[in-house]
This record gives sequence, C-alpha cells and structure tokens, in this order.
Amino acid sequence: MAHKFVNQIEPGETIDDIYVIRDPILRSTTRGDLYIAMFLSDRSGQLNGRMWQATETIYRTLPKPGFAHIQGRSELYQNNLQVIVNNISLVDSGQVHIEDFLAKTDKDTHQMFEEVRKIVGQIKNSQLKALVGEFLADADLMEKFCNVPGGVKLHHDYIGGLLEHTHSMLRVAVAILPLYKQVQADLVLAGIFLHDIGKTEELAYDMVFSYTDSGQLIGHVAKSLLMIDQKANALRAKGTKIDQTVQDALGHIILSHHGEYEFGSPKLPATAEAFMVYYIDDLDAKISQVTAAIDNEPSDSNWTAWKSALQTRLYRKRLE
Amino acid sequence: MAHKFVNQIEPGETIDDIYVIRDPILRSTTRGDLYIAMFLSDRSGQLNGRMWQATETIYRTLPKPGFAHIQGRSELYQNNLQVIVNNISLVDSGQVHIEDFLAKTDKDTHQMFEEVRKIVGQIKNSQLKALVGEFLADADLMEKFCNVPGGVKLHHDYIGGLLEHTHSMLRVAVAILPLYKQVQADLVLAGIFLHDIGKTEELAYDMVFSYTDSGQLIGHVAKSLLMIDQKANALRAKGTKIDQTVQDALGHIILSHHGEYEFGSPKLPATAEAFMVYYIDDLDAKISQVTAAIDNEPSDSNWTAWKSALQTRLYRKRLE
Amino acid sequence: MAHKFVNQIEPGETIDDIYVIRDPILRSTTRGDLYIAMFLSDRSGQLNGRMWQATETIYRTLPKPGFAHIQGRSELYQNNLQVIVNNISLVDSGQVHIEDFLAKTDKDTHQMFEEVRKIVGQIKNSQLKALVGEFLADADLMEKFCNVPGGVKLHHDYIGGLLEHTHSMLRVAVAILPLYKQVQADLVLAGIFLHDIGKTEELAYDMVFSYTDSGQLIGHVAKSLLMIDQKANALRAKGTKIDQTVQDALGHIILSHHGEYEFGSPKLPATAEAFMVYYIDDLDAKISQVTAAIDNEPSDSNWTAWKSALQTRLYRKRLE
Amino acid sequence: MAHKFVNQIEPGETIDDIYVIRDPILRSTTRGDLYIAMFLSDRSGQLNGRMWQATETIYRTLPKPGFAHIQGRSELYQNNLQVIVNNISLVDSGQVHIEDFLAKTDKDTHQMFEEVRKIVGQIKNSQLKALVGEFLADADLMEKFCNVPGGVKLHHDYIGGLLEHTHSMLRVAVAILPLYKQVQADLVLAGIFLHDIGKTEELAYDMVFSYTDSGQLIGHVAKSLLMIDQKANALRAKGTKIDQTVQDALGHIILSHHGEYEFGSPKLPATAEAFMVYYIDDLDAKISQVTAAIDNEPSDSNWTAWKSALQTRLYRKRLE
Amino acid sequence: MAHKFVNQIEPGETIDDIYVIRDPILRSTTRGDLYIAMFLSDRSGQLNGRMWQATETIYRTLPKPGFAHIQGRSELYQNNLQVIVNNISLVDSGQVHIEDFLAKTDKDTHQMFEEVRKIVGQIKNSQLKALVGEFLADADLMEKFCNVPGGVKLHHDYIGGLLEHTHSMLRVAVAILPLYKQVQADLVLAGIFLHDIGKTEELAYDMVFSYTDSGQLIGHVAKSLLMIDQKANALRAKGTKIDQTVQDALGHIILSHHGEYEFGSPKLPATAEAFMVYYIDDLDAKISQVTAAIDNEPSDSNWTAWKSALQTRLYRKRLE
Amino acid sequence: MAHKFVNQIEPGETIDDIYVIRDPILRSTTRGDLYIAMFLSDRSGQLNGRMWQATETIYRTLPKPGFAHIQGRSELYQNNLQVIVNNISLVDSGQVHIEDFLAKTDKDTHQMFEEVRKIVGQIKNSQLKALVGEFLADADLMEKFCNVPGGVKLHHDYIGGLLEHTHSMLRVAVAILPLYKQVQADLVLAGIFLHDIGKTEELAYDMVFSYTDSGQLIGHVAKSLLMIDQKANALRAKGTKIDQTVQDALGHIILSHHGEYEFGSPKLPATAEAFMVYYIDDLDAKISQVTAAIDNEPSDSNWTAWKSALQTRLYRKRLE
Repeated sequence: MAHKFVNQIEPGETIDDIYVIRDPILRSTTRGDLYIAMFLSDRSGQLNGRMWQATETIYRTLPKPGFAHIQGRSELYQNNLQVIVNNISLVDSGQVHIEDFLAKTDKDTHQMFEEVRKIVGQIKNSQLKALVGEFLADADLMEKFCNVPGGVKLHHDYIGGLLEHTHSMLRVAVAILPLYKQVQADLVLAGIFLHDIGKTEELAYDMVFSYTDSGQLIGHVAKSLLMIDQKANALRAKGTKIDQTVQDALGHIILSHHGEYEFGSPKLPATAEAFMVYYIDDLDAKISQVTAAIDNEPSDSNWTAWKSALQTRLYRKRLE
Repeated sequence: MAHKFVNQIEPGETIDDIYVIRDPILRSTTRGDLYIAMFLSDRSGQLNGRMWQATETIYRTLPKPGFAHIQGRSELYQNNLQVIVNNISLVDSGQVHIEDFLAKTDKDTHQMFEEVRKIVGQIKNSQLKALVGEFLADADLMEKFCNVPGGVKLHHDYIGGLLEHTHSMLRVAVAILPLYKQVQADLVLAGIFLHDIGKTEELAYDMVFSYTDSGQLIGHVAKSLLMIDQKANALRAKGTKIDQTVQDALGHIILSHHGEYEFGSPKLPATAEAFMVYYIDDLDAKISQVTAAIDNEPSDSNWTAWKSALQTRLYRKRLE
Repeated sequence: MAHKFVNQIEPGETIDDIYVIRDPILRSTTRGDLYIAMFLSDRSGQLNGRMWQATETIYRTLPKPGFAHIQGRSELYQNNLQVIVNNISLVDSGQVHIEDFLAKTDKDTHQMFEEVRKIVGQIKNSQLKALVGEFLADADLMEKFCNVPGGVKLHHDYIGGLLEHTHSMLRVAVAILPLYKQVQADLVLAGIFLHDIGKTEELAYDMVFSYTDSGQLIGHVAKSLLMIDQKANALRAKGTKIDQTVQDALGHIILSHHGEYEFGSPKLPATAEAFMVYYIDDLDAKISQVTAAIDNEPSDSNWTAWKSALQTRLYRKRLE
Repeated sequence: MAHKFVNQIEPGETIDDIYVIRDPILRSTTRGDLYIAMFLSDRSGQLNGRMWQATETIYRTLPKPGFAHIQGRSELYQNNLQVIVNNISLVDSGQVHIEDFLAKTDKDTHQMFEEVRKIVGQIKNSQLKALVGEFLADADLMEKFCNVPGGVKLHHDYIGGLLEHTHSMLRVAVAILPLYKQVQADLVLAGIFLHDIGKTEELAYDMVFSYTDSGQLIGHVAKSLLMIDQKANALRAKGTKIDQTVQDALGHIILSHHGEYEFGSPKLPATAEAFMVYYIDDLDAKISQVTAAIDNEPSDSNWTAWKSALQTRLYRKRLE
Repeated sequence: MAHKFVNQIEPGETIDDIYVIRDPILRSTTRGDLYIAMFLSDRSGQLNGRMWQATETIYRTLPKPGFAHIQGRSELYQNNLQVIVNNISLVDSGQVHIEDFLAKTDKDTHQMFEEVRKIVGQIKNSQLKALVGEFLADADLMEKFCNVPGGVKLHHDYIGGLLEHTHSMLRVAVAILPLYKQVQADLVLAGIFLHDIGKTEELAYDMVFSYTDSGQLIGHVAKSLLMIDQKANALRAKGTKIDQTVQDALGHIILSHHGEYEFGSPKLPATAEAFMVYYIDDLDAKISQVTAAIDNEPSDSNWTAWKSALQTRLYRKRLE
Repeated sequence: MAHKFVNQIEPGETIDDIYVIRDPILRSTTRGDLYIAMFLSDRSGQLNGRMWQATETIYRTLPKPGFAHIQGRSELYQNNLQVIVNNISLVDSGQVHIEDFLAKTDKDTHQMFEEVRKIVGQIKNSQLKALVGEFLADADLMEKFCNVPGGVKLHHDYIGGLLEHTHSMLRVAVAILPLYKQVQADLVLAGIFLHDIGKTEELAYDMVFSYTDSGQLIGHVAKSLLMIDQKANALRAKGTKIDQTVQDALGHIILSHHGEYEFGSPKLPATAEAFMVYYIDDLDAKISQVTAAIDNEPSDSNWTAWKSALQTRLYRKRLE
C-alpha cells in the first residue's frame, strides 16, 4: 500500500502508516495529565502529533528520532492540522521504504563518483594530487560524499545531491578550462572537488534532512577548511610534503566560494581560480534550482509561483 | 620616435608630440586676456592644457575633439601637472599611430568574428535564426561590433573588446550547453551574441574611449533591446514572422543579464537561459579582469594593489 | 441579488453565483479518478475550486480564464477554504456585472482624458508635439490608456487608474512648472504623459488584474521606451523629423523615473526634468496610497494596520 | 582691488590680502622653535598657513576665527600648497567685503520673507496659527531664519538659502494643495515653515559656513523639534491651548521629513502631510542642486563632472 | 479558577471569562442587522470577537478599551478562530488578576530602583547631578519609570522591564568604567539612566502593552530628548545653571544610542561615552533576549526555533 | 640624532638615515638604462625610492625587505615626493631603533600577560582548561601573542596590541560575568583569550606592520579556528579527551565574533556567550579607537577630522 504523505493528510482521516518521530516531549496538561508532543515527518514535510494519556514508560521507549508505526486520526487544532496518536510501535529502518522519507538523485551515484575520480585524476601538481588522493582514500568519507544531500532546501536537496552537484561542476570545469589558459586547472579541480566536502559533517540525512549541531555551529565552509588541514597534516605525518602556500591557495578557494560576505564567505575571491569555482558553483546551483522549480510547478500556468530566494516568478514556456 | 605618453610626462619637460585635444574652451583671465583651456589625452590618460594669448580665430580652428601636434612645456599648477601650449597644428588621423591612442585586442578580430558567425550559425529555431541573421547582414553594425571596446574601464577596455568578450562567452556556452540539456541552446546563443550589442551605440572609440550622449542617457541594456525590436520589425516588414513570445524571451535575457537591480538590470533573471547568460557574462568578465590585473601589476609583490571594484587585492603567486 | 464576494464566503455555505475561472487543470487522484482544480476569483480575491468526478469533456469546455456560473459548496481543506464545484456553466461577459470583478475609478474618464489632451496640447516643441500627437492619434492605444489600471496592487489599482494617475501628475506639473523656470516644461509634460504608457501592454484587466507574459518578461519601463521608439520611427517614415537627441531626452525620463536602481530604473535621473517627473510620480502615488489606506481601514483605530510597503502603520486622526 | 580667492593662488605668489583665520595652533619644531599653524579661508575654500618664528604673544592676539590681513608667499609643501605668513594684522569685519567670504542668495530676502509670512498667514487652525505666530514674533530668530544658509554643501548653500528653500517649498505647496483635498493644508504649511528651523542653531555663518558644536551633536531635525516644544510651552505658559495631538502631528512631520532612516529621519512618514512635506523638500532641493550644477559646470561639455551625491553626471544640453 | 488564555482557546469551546475589549466597532451586515466587532485580549495574545444582534445602546456602554466579562463560544471563521459573544458585562480593574493581562518582572522593583538611585548618586558633575535629581524628584514620572515595560516585543517586554534593563546597564557601567579611565563616568551614568526615559510616554501598559499615539508619532528617542530639555529648562527657571554644552553632550548620547541610522538613531555616536552607552544597551538587551528565548523554548531540541530578529536559531546545550 | 620620519620629509632635502626597503624591483628605462624602484618606509608611512644607474649586482644585494642606510635627496615627481637614492648600505637590525619603525604599546606586556594567564586560570571546565593550557604551554606562540599588533590600521595597531586588547577584554568579562549568571563564564574567557589568536599568523610585524600571504588568503578568523583544532588534536593524541561539542561551542564564538556577515563572520552569534564576546570585542575596540583619535587629533578644534570608519567626526570637548 502506498505511503500516505503528511502533506496529503486531510482533517478527519484515519492514520495507519509509518512516519519518522522527532523531538518527542513529555508534558502535563493544566489538569496534571501526561501527554507526549512530537513531530511526525516524511519527505513531504512534518505535522504535530499528540498522544494523550501517555506515561513516562511509553515516552522512554520512543526514538529521538526514529521510525514508528503510527495509528490515530487527524484533526484541526488552532487552525493547524495535527495527528492524535493512539498507538505507537517502533519499526526497524530495514522495514521502511527509505525513499518515502528521503528524496534521492535519479542519477547513478556509482558512475558519477567514478567520473569524479577520473576528472580529479587529471591533477598534475604532486601536492594537490596527494591531498586529493588522501580524501579519495578515506572510504568512510567518500561513502558519505556519495550520499549527503547538496543542501536542506534550495538545490540538490536529495540523497546524492552533493555528488551530483560536484560532478556537474567538475564537468563544467573540464569543458571551459581549456578556454582560460591562465587559470590553474589543478587548483580549480581540487577546489571544486573539496568546495563543499564539509557538508558531510554539516548535514544529517539518515531519516530526514537536517543540520547536525556541529554543522549549525561551525558551517560547512569552515568544516571543509578544517578537513583539508587534517588531511594535509596526516600526509605531513606520513612524510609527504604539503607546502603551506599550496594549502592556502586551496583553502582560499573554499573560504571565498560563496562570493560575497553576506552569503557567509569570510573572504572575497582574490584569485582567478577562486572566481572560477564561485561562478561554476553558482551557475550549476541556479540552473538546477530553476529547472527543478519549472518542472515541479503543479499548475499549468506559464509562470511558477513566486520564488522568494530568486525574487521573481519563473517563466515556464519554451520556444516551439 | 616613440610617443611620449601623458602618464610619463614630468614637470619641466619640453612637449613636442601628437595628442588628442578634447573640450577646448575659450576663456578670459581676470585681466581680460583670452586663453584656451583644453584636455590633452592619449591611451594612457589625460592632462590639462592651457594656451595663453589665444584668439577666437585660433579657438575656431580647434577640433572638438581631434588629433593635434602640440608644442609647449609641462609645469605644475595647483599641484597638478599641466601643459602650457605654445603651438597647435592639426593632424590628420591618417598620420597618427592609432595604437598610441586606443588600446586594441591582441587577438585576430577577423578570425574571432568568423567563429562567432559559425557558432550562432548553429541556431536551429527559424525565428531566432532570422533575427540573428538580420544583425549579421548589417555590415555597418558588424564592423562596429568588431571594433567597439567591451567597456570604458573595467574589463575588455580596448578596440575589439566586445567581440573578444562575446566570442569567449559563446565558446563557453558551446562547451557547457551539452551538460545542461534542459536549457534552450538557441536562446542562450542568440542572447550572448546580442547581450551587449547596444554598446555599439553607447560607446565612442574613434580617438579615445568615452560614452556617447545617447549612450549615457539610455544605456546599452535598453539600446540592445531597441535594436532587437528594430530588426524584428524590419523582418516583419519583409514578411518574416517573428512571434512576440520569441522576441520577449530574447529581450528578457538582455534586460536581466546584469543579474541584479543595483547593477542596472531592470528585470531579474526568470528563465534558465537568462541565468546562464548572466553567469557566463560575469565569469568571462571577471576572469579577464583578474588575469589582466595580475599581469599588469607593476610591482614584483605577491599581491596587486587594492582593486576597489573587487574589494580586495589579488594574489599573483602561482603553484610551482 | 448581490454578488457573494469570495472574501466573504464562510465554510459550509451553498455557492450559486458567477466567478472568474482561472488556470483549470485536469488531474487524477491516487485512485485514478479525474478531477479539475481551478481558481475562482472576483475583485475581492480568489479561492481554490475543485470539481470531483470530472471528465476530459467538461475540462475542454472550460474557459482559461472566463466567467462561469458556479454551483457547489464551501469547505475547509488543509486549513484553507475551498469550493467543491458541482456544476459549471459558462456565462457571457455581457451578462456579468463587471464591477463585481474589476474595481473602477470613481472619476469621469472622458473628462480626465480631455484634460490630459488639453494639457499636453500646451507642448510647444514641434518634435515632442508630433510624438505626443502620434500617441493621441492611436485610438486603440488611447482606449487602453483610459482603462488600464495604474498597477496590480499598490496604488491606482482599478480600471482607469493609469489615466487618473497621469491626469493628476499633469495637473501637479502645470501647477509647479511656473515656479521652476529652468526646467523644460515640454519635456516634463511629454514625460509624464508617456511615463507608464507601457502598462497598457504590461497589464491585463479584462476579468481580473494581472500581468501579461510579455509584461512580466519585459516590464512597463522598457515597454514604454519601445513604444516611443516605434512611434518616432512611424513619424520618421512619414517624413516628420524626430531628432535622436529629443527622443533620448524623453527616453531618459522614462528609464529613470523610478528614481533608484533597486526600484527597477536602469538609469538614474540625470536631468532636472527627469528628477521632476520622478518626484511628481512618487508624490502622487504615495498620497493616493496613503489616503486610500486611511479611508479603507476597517477599524475605528487611530492607526491603520501595518503597511509593509511603507514600513509603518498610518495615522488616521485629523486635526479638529 | 579684487580679492585673491584661495582656489586661485598658485605656488610662488606674493600674498597680500584679507582672509579668515581658523584654528590657529602654537607648535614647536623638533629644534624647539615656535611656529603657528592655521587655516586661511574665504568662500572659495581653505589653505594651510604657517607662520615661522612665532611667539606666544602673537598667538594670543589671533582670532579663533576672525578676519586678518595676511602678508606672505605661497609655496608647495609635501605636494600641498601652503602660505608662509610673514605678517598678520587683524581686520574689523566692517572693513571686509563679506561677499568674498560668504555666498549669498541673489533673491530679495525681504520680499521672500513677506511672502512666507503671507502664505503661513493662510493657516486656519487656531493652534497651528498661534504656534507659527510665536515663531514669527521672535524677531531674533526670524532674522537668523532669513540669513542662515540651507546647508553647508549640497544645496542652497549660501546666505538666505534656508529662506529661499522654505519660500520655494511653500509656493509649491500652495500650488498643489488644491489638487489633494484630503491633505490637511494647515499641517503642510506649518510643517514646511518649520521643517528646518533648527538649522538656525545647527549652522554658523558669520565668516564661513560651518556646523556649531551643538548642531553637530544634536542635528537640525531634533533641534527643530525642541524649538517647537519650547514655543508651544511658552504659549501654554501664556494661557494659549496647544493640544499634544496638534504638536505631535507637526512634530512627526519634522522627524520624518528626510523620508528614510539612512538619511537621519528617526521616524518614517506616517501621514499624507508628512509624505507631502518630504517630497516637496526633496523635489525643491534636487531641482536646485541639479540646475546649479548644470549652470556652474566650467566646461562646455554636454555633461557635468560626476556628482557623487547623485551617483551620475548631469546632462546639460537643452532642447532647441 | 484559572484564567483561560486566548492562545489556549480551541474551536467549539464555551467562553466565560474576563478579557480586555479593544477597538469595538458597530457595523451593519449586508442585510442591515447591527453587530459589534472587537478584539478580546490578554497577555497571551488577541482574538476577534463578534456580537450579533447588537444595538447602539450596547455599543455605547463598551469600554474602548477596558476589562469585561465575556460569555459566548469560540468558532472558526475564514480559517481564523473567533469568539461569538453572547453577553458582555463590564468589570472593574480592581476585580481582575492584572498578571493575567500584563507580564511583570520577577525582580524586586523597589530594590532595583533604590540601587539605580544609589548608582546615579555617584555622579559628581554638579549640572548632571542637578538634572538627574530633577528627574528623581518627579514622583509621577519615577513611578512610571518603575512600571513601564522595556518594549512591546523584543526584550524586557514586561511591567518593570525598563527599570530592570536600566538597572542592569548601570551595574555593567559601574563594573567596567574603572577599566576605561578616559571615559567620563558621569556622562555614561546619566546617559544610561535617561537613555529610554521617553518610553514612559511612548508605551501604554495599563491593560495590554501598546504604543501611545504620541509614542508612535514621535518615538522614545526624541521624547527622551524633549524630557531632558524640559527638565533643564525647569532647573534654569529655578536659577540652576545648566550649560548648553552639558545638555548637548547628554542629548547626543540619547540621539545616538541605537548606534546606526537604520535602527532609528538620527545621529551616530561621536564620543566615547556615546559608544559605551550604545554597547552596554545592546549587550544587555541581546543577552536578555537570547537567554529568555533559550529558557522559553517549548521543545527539548538543542536549538530554539528560528529567531528572525537575530537571523539564526539559538543553541541551547550547555557545557557539562 | 633623531630619525627623520618619512612623513616629515620635504622636497629638496638631503637624506641620510635608516629606512626599511620594501619591494625593490630592477627595471630598465626606455633608453635601456637599469634602475631600481623600491619603497622606503618607517612607522610614519612610506615613500617611493629610485636608484638610477643601478646594476644587477647592487639589486641582488638588497633585502626584500630589510633595513638599510639610505643616502640621497628628496624631490617631487609627478606630484609625488620621492627619494633619489645615491647610496645604499645594509644595516643589521640590531643597529636600529626599532621603535622608529614599529609603534609599541606603552603598557607592560609582561604584567599584562601574567594577568591574562591568571584570568584564564579561573576556567573550571576541564576540557577548556586543557585546551587553553595547551596554548599557554606553546612558548613560541605565546611570545608572538605578546608582540603581534591588534591590527594594521584601525585599533591597537602597535606591538603588543593584541595582548593589550585581549587583556582589556578579559578584564571587562571578569567585571560583568557575575551580572549575567546564565552566561557560561568558562566559554567566554576561553573565547576571548583565543578570539584573535590567528592574528599571530595573519600579521607580520618584524619591520613594518603588514599581512602575511597566508593571512590575506585565509584570514585570522579561520586561522584561529584551525589553531584550536590543531591544539585539540594534539591533546587528543596525548590522550586528553576534548569533546567535539566543547570544541564546536568554542569554535562558534571564534567564527561569529565579528557579529555580522558583512564584517567577515561566516556565522552569526547563536549563543549568549558568542554575543558577549562579540560585544566586548567591539566595545573595547571602539573605545580604544575613539580615545586614540581624540588624543592624537593634531588641531585644537573641538572636533577631530572625519573618521570614515565611524562615519562621523569625533567630539573632543570634555565636561568641566
């Protein structure tokens, strides 16, 4: 039976399906009765859930967060839809259709990763080659790299999104680097490969997409820089020379690739390579965001709904 | 004998060379003597010139502007260098080394234009093809297109600069369009070809680079749109159908290609094609600007001087 | 019987009235049943409408958009009011009370237009006179000019709004031009008359107020400039001389009359005439917006609700 | 003999003329010799002056600031022109041509003030009438009002400038108030009359235009509000009723008449009257600023120099 | 019986409790029946109330605003909760639990005020001492000072909030002034004591927190300045000398203590004392706002909800 | 003999003193003669120097940069003062009065450092204590920490400036932390101690103050974060537990302590501790900057010159 997505639930429906439980809290009413407040979510969004006549015992069994089979019914409360939960039983993640909870790229991640590996394999500078190799050799990290979404909301917000975005950026770089001979290709390729690597630590994506605590406090820009420093130090400990100037040139690309202070870059681009990574990143993100918005527009109108991140509606009509 | 550039003149030198005279004015001193104030310029900059004991007859012979052989001497006046002009004789533009006055692209304009023609020749949509063809068939306009600078100051500021910039952008588009299959290639190619075509009317470049009156009042963005409208109307008058929707999709790219209101775009990009032209334009302009600044830095320092347009100094050191 | 405005419908009401149908889409439920989603609107706003058990035949008969007699009932769905449509029958526009759908100026449009004609008749410069005359002689355009709203939302948002706003601005100009003798009156009067003429193409106002596709892509500022160019070219084709300098001085007023880049002006005012048109436009729009908000405030409070476009609440109390 | 303006002095000239001495300081060289540093100024600008072999006795005689007959010679020092002062003798202000030091309106201030008095005489509201009358009855203040400049730099920067600006604004208001019947004329007229009255305390204009200490610390906006409060309290002390609501409606116009926070308005306009005063103020200031810049441009060019306050050059060519 | 807070009312409840009635309006339905629209509020928020079958007699008896016993029932109308009022009876403010309507500081206001009095008692400058004393001696004003909230929404938004905030700021100043010996302590202490004194006139707090008309038109910054001027004038009238320079130095602190134009400061800080008051104000406000948000977060999450005033979520986890 | 500071050199002087040579370049004139261009600098600024008739041999001996005894004379060239260098002889840094080249704090650095050590010694949390201890135990780093300036230009721009600023901030924190009991003192103290520690790598200060290449590319904010990560990893390698949550809470303070994106903070403050460090940093910097500007104003005016970083002039008059 098809999963009932939370954005499709209407008031007065019977609920009998699996959802992710998040942030359960045990509270007491003004009369002193215990109840549990929680969020129920899947890939389409989240709803408030409330279990009356709860006990501390039940509360203790709840995952924070986790998958659970929910039985109850939907209702309106203060103009918001909520679910009155009658029964909760935990569900093993092996039993769920994970795609109901986490959107996923429709591209082949294995093939994309092989192409990424091949493109950065073209790097000739021995120190950058060693640094990139140290990342490629970290199997745990590379598995995360292949799975983490590109973001929580704006673009490439699905499993494999970071890989898809990085892969696409690398292909753009390979296509245009021959046209700009003064730009140092090795730095651009290494810079793209690692520009958002810190998202592997910034984002959580096991049940729903969210930020880790560490991710919210530090951010992927600084985290990427830290990871490069750690890999460089690991190489140095093994006797491989990594000059500070090489590390800084790469680090500068990471720190400036949002292009403007107001977008969280602590440094503005100061090299041709940093400018190139910034523009390729922005180009690939915006084209992806715009084409997704146009494809997913539910109406038949020539225009999408207003997109506040772009401060415009988007025009959907194509040339004939 | 090599031309003495105005930015190389020191106080107390004898001047005996050809310069462009601009904005001559006949004035009288507080004692009632007539004198002529003017600017003397070449590609390196401009200086104030002053001819004492002038007459209205001399003033009437002066070009506004034009080339002239200047004899006199340099001096400091109110802390600014100026040239006291003793003698002026007009010079025919055929006699001057035009490259002393107008910087020029070091690429082959004929070859670049042929490549531009070839790339836009790939456009398949019959209406866009007709529209682009109408521009290509306008020999006077195309000659201007091959010669006009890309700007007065920031980037591609030399004869042939617009062609070089447009040519480079088209090559980038050809390289990356296969990677973004949802983006309509015909619109991107036509949009790039025409994105700054209005600069042919906005900029003057016969003796020095400057804005025309019409260019300052209207700007190249609106002028490009007007030129497209005029060519479309000319085609319609000849019986070729140009749908308003096609013209608008192209016009939108022109009007939004600066990307933000504050950079003079009266519309924000609302199609994937408009975003692509905007990013390719900005990428090509910035890479050109950055590499030129790094190449032309006079010092041996690892950093250029502060670049206020980029809000940073630029790092010049390359990987070894 | 009085029309039931959509912003007065409560849940659970029986609906039996004429509305504008917009953007109907034929969709299928998860069970495979067909239904039609649409918007129902009048001058007070719009609601979602849904017709279950629909067929493709019904769908094909629906106007996109158009007037229709709707029978059904209202209900809450996901916290939003929607109308379940049981029956739809098309209605000829001649049968509807158009004022239920489109607000209209309460001034006499004929009289206002005659005054506009009289005021711009004072223009002495022969070229501007010819240009303005070419617009006045375009009967279709002048009919639109008398009917198009001044905008979709902020001010003069009713049939005849552009005429009312232009008329009021011209009267202000006539009143203050004698006080600023250095300002060229002819340019100011022609500039005001044509400053928003492009709204005749930017806005649609046959059933509800909205933007045309062309209007959203190009905008009324650029459209006004294009229309002036077309009229000037038409005059030239008829042998009437229109200097480029005259056209540019007028065009500059059009392009700069929003006063700042962030409000969509691609040029900043660079003449006294451009500044005067900008301030008269802004003054008339704001006074109209403020007095309308104060008059229409539903409460008896001394203050209106927060007006986000003005970043303040408005004070309604008058001196005694 | 004509005054030698400081912006006309060249290096190496003999100086023998009257200037304003400002900010004299007694200092000692590294060798221990005393000298006096000072500024020498007139309406055209200021220069550094230096008197070597000075004594404390001489220093004590110097005005801070004041008029003085200066004898010496000009020279370059660290690339700046300065005057070596050999002799200083004080000059009574009665002996100087004050117009060499302070620019003055070329309009008739007596006549303008009479018109101002006549226009505000139309105010019907008894409390506003009383308040305005209290200002008119303050002869010392009205004399300052007739003489203070409208500003130090941007517009109406000459003796009588505030009067000229206020007079012009009142005439605009009289011309357009009949067109906006909902706007309360009494508040607009009183608001304009008093909008910058605090400049009488903010600016000093006895020898050169400058800010008073109090003016720089508090500003004319807040000072105008304080002066209205003081006059209202004086009236109340005399038994004339001034309602707080009347005073607040007027005070709000004062506090919001710069229109935006970034221009020093602590409040945004929240009444039609406040918007009208704001726009009339800005219109009159900008038209005055633009026409002055166009008239005073020294070159014959169609364009003025870049005006950073307006972020553009101004176009000087008029229709024929 | 505990008060039923308006933010806890669900649809379909019977209402029988005391609320504040605000802005009652007598209106007629389309059928001509009279009804009364009003707001019902307490410290938790407000709801629409509607009394059908009303009469002008009932309307006249209603307080505008005031406490009333309301009997009726709650329902959803156009997706908003409203209360259908069947019966209204006025209630004397002596009968209500005022804390149900107005939040209050949990600190001891008497003790805080004594500490404030003691700290400003350290001021040595005789004129500032006199000025501060004049405020302290105004018993009505001091009572308001002890009760007015610090604001309507952002921080210290409860009875006694301004006192608590001022008290805390003074304690910070006392702690750090010894570390900055060049900063004039007297000015800082007087500046803090009076920095928001105008809030006593800007805010109303008898039944709910709101702005007075005068407060919205003039604002607490300008009102504080006016109050200082009035007290200074009162002292002068009594023969106590208050130099304009002292008053201006203090006034400057008031006018610049929001630190930036965009936050409503008409002046930027220009003295060390003004900077110190600005930073202590901002520090105390932000720490209070952040710790309150962290304490009041209803969920158990490590992060609060998004705080738009701070443009971030807040991290709640403490070190162990 | 006293050092002749470069900002005191006039045209035509004989030069015979020690300066820092920076960025020497060997160039050839248009006639093919070799010359050396260089900068000559001391703590007061820098000048262009030029040695004619140079040889490659001389060029090779020059330090880049370094101290040198310069003999020559000063002259004006293109309106700029430059020094014609006749003779250069290298000077050992031991022979120079370093205070002629680098300004230094007038406080006792040893005593300040001991107080810093004592204050951070109050930290109770064992992990933060260990982390801070690891920094204190790094003698080389602590020596740099005691000597590096606080910045190149704005505030604390002298040897020992970072220590003085950090020391002052810690004293402020100690004074006010007891007043904010909910704020975690350990995090604030550790955060202040390390907030700018990366400046030890960002700034060079051996001969003149400047940025290192690494400093300009990466910046002190990111560098401070990297140094904390390295020390934490070093501790972990030694078996000391440092939780990621502790490191992140501290790292967040570092990354957000500039308070706004536009000032180079990649994160906005999200904890009370981060807000406190941000405000103490800004308070201490601004008070230092303002009092220094007031103290160093060369004129006797009540106002300093315009300070563009503060967008105001500063008022220098104190209460009597």
